[in-house]
Amino acid sequence: MPTNMHTSLQAFLQNSALPTLDAGSVALVGAGCGSLGNLTLAALTLIANCDAVVFDALVDNEILALLPETCERYDMGKRGGNPSASQDAINHKLLELAQCGLKVLRLKGGDPSVFGRGGEEALFLARHGVKSQFVAGVTAALGCAASAAIPLTHRGVSRSVTLVTGHQQDGDTTHHWRTLLSLGSTLVFYMGKDQAPKIAASLLLSGANPDLPMVFISAGCREAQQLHPATIATMALTAKLIQTQGPTLMILGEVVAVGSELQQLLAEIDNGGLRHAVAG
Amino acid sequence: MPTNMHTSLQAFLQNSALPTLDAGSVALVGAGCGSLGNLTLAALTLIANCDAVVFDALVDNEILALLPETCERYDMGKRGGNPSASQDAINHKLLELAQCGLKVLRLKGGDPSVFGRGGEEALFLARHGVKSQFVAGVTAALGCAASAAIPLTHRGVSRSVTLVTGHQQDGDTTHHWRTLLSLGSTLVFYMGKDQAPKIAASLLLSGANPDLPMVFISAGCREAQQLHPATIATMALTAKLIQTQGPTLMILGEVVAVGSELQQLLAEIDNGGLRHAVAG
Repeated sequence: MPTNMHTSLQAFLQNSALPTLDAGSVALVGAGCGSLGNLTLAALTLIANCDAVVFDALVDNEILALLPETCERYDMGKRGGNPSASQDAINHKLLELAQCGLKVLRLKGGDPSVFGRGGEEALFLARHGVKSQFVAGVTAALGCAASAAIPLTHRGVSRSVTLVTGHQQDGDTTHHWRTLLSLGSTLVFYMGKDQAPKIAASLLLSGANPDLPMVFISAGCREAQQLHPATIATMALTAKLIQTQGPTLMILGEVVAVGSELQQLLAEIDNGGLRHAVAG
Repeated sequence: MPTNMHTSLQAFLQNSALPTLDAGSVALVGAGCGSLGNLTLAALTLIANCDAVVFDALVDNEILALLPETCERYDMGKRGGNPSASQDAINHKLLELAQCGLKVLRLKGGDPSVFGRGGEEALFLARHGVKSQFVAGVTAALGCAASAAIPLTHRGVSRSVTLVTGHQQDGDTTHHWRTLLSLGSTLVFYMGKDQAPKIAASLLLSGANPDLPMVFISAGCREAQQLHPATIATMALTAKLIQTQGPTLMILGEVVAVGSELQQLLAEIDNGGLRHAVAG
């Protein structure tokens, strides 16, 4: 991070009433989805003031560049084919750093309370007498919906949205996902690409509308973001054709069609210029 | 906003690769939940560089203070007993400002794609030839979960979370909320306090566990935040005893008990000091 940026950032943050991190405590911080734009000011303040950080594979390098030079860094995510650290190892590393009296940052992609195991880490630390605080982040469902221009709820179309992991599906739960979809709810599956054939088969078996639109979003909120639209009937095949590594989000529901209409209109504006004269 | 803060902030933002707002276009921006801490850098950049803003009642004054002095401001939310502007009036105001060639900010509490009508506004604008972009925000469910130390998902307890509005409930949907709860899913109701007695009665009628824990969170992510714990059996009465004005979030599910355990352990640490010596 260039010195002038760091200086000006510090000056701004020092003047604001943002959270602080005590020595010997841990902040469980969501780094948001993708790059810098989805980072919150609370997260930024804690990043700029921590002594040690334990981060996972979903945290962008652009965000890690904001850490102080003196900060101890522990990469405990799955990268480059190496397995990720066990939850137990992460818990003990956080405890060890806090018990050394450091200001410890546990930096996670997305939000710490949604599929982030933040609760497990906070409970482990608290049972060992170490304080922690949660700092919310833009979870992938919100970040991807925004960058793909898909509303997750939409009047007359969807009145609720359910966030679920693609892992650990069984027939019992799939039946209820089908019911939710038939009620017009939006379903967002995290890390579900590999499970897509199984999810699609279960949904179809339980009577879901095969023409219901869905979309895979790969590299969400990043420059390389790609949308792969499909339907319940075609999603298994579409999943196999996606080459991208890394997490892929799936959005299922009629809101995907609303998003498609919006994306098409925006593309037309880009191609044809504004159709209405700009006055004033 | 003090001049030194504004100068340093501008310097930082100008050096970062954050979104820009074109003249004659609209950014549909989530201001996050509560005060400054949950604001994202993308939102901050657009706030600092817009010509006109249309905001709702959920946007904090601390955030409005970041707007440029020259910015045209349109308060279209429900405040001080006055009714909020109609969606139609908001749509036309956004269109009018964009057609004047301004950089227009549509600033919403939370996230624009979750119960924010962002999709409606973007479609209306696009059909009139005006471009828009979505900028995600920390929606109330995430912000409140973090500040109340309640994980929304938790291994072995809850594998999904559903966000729903308290309005427009009917027996058909409540039946499925009951089913989701029995599967261990977390339910978060936005603006549900007034509907709590009806929701509770429907859940109980459809066979929900009366002892299932829930919590009302009022003034979420603000200094005045309060937690009002209850169960499905007691939530109707608890709702009546809450005096706070403004939106109240409800979290239902076993994760509320996980949160209670964590809150109690954190309170013990605060009261008794660290139970383990801080070494090093």
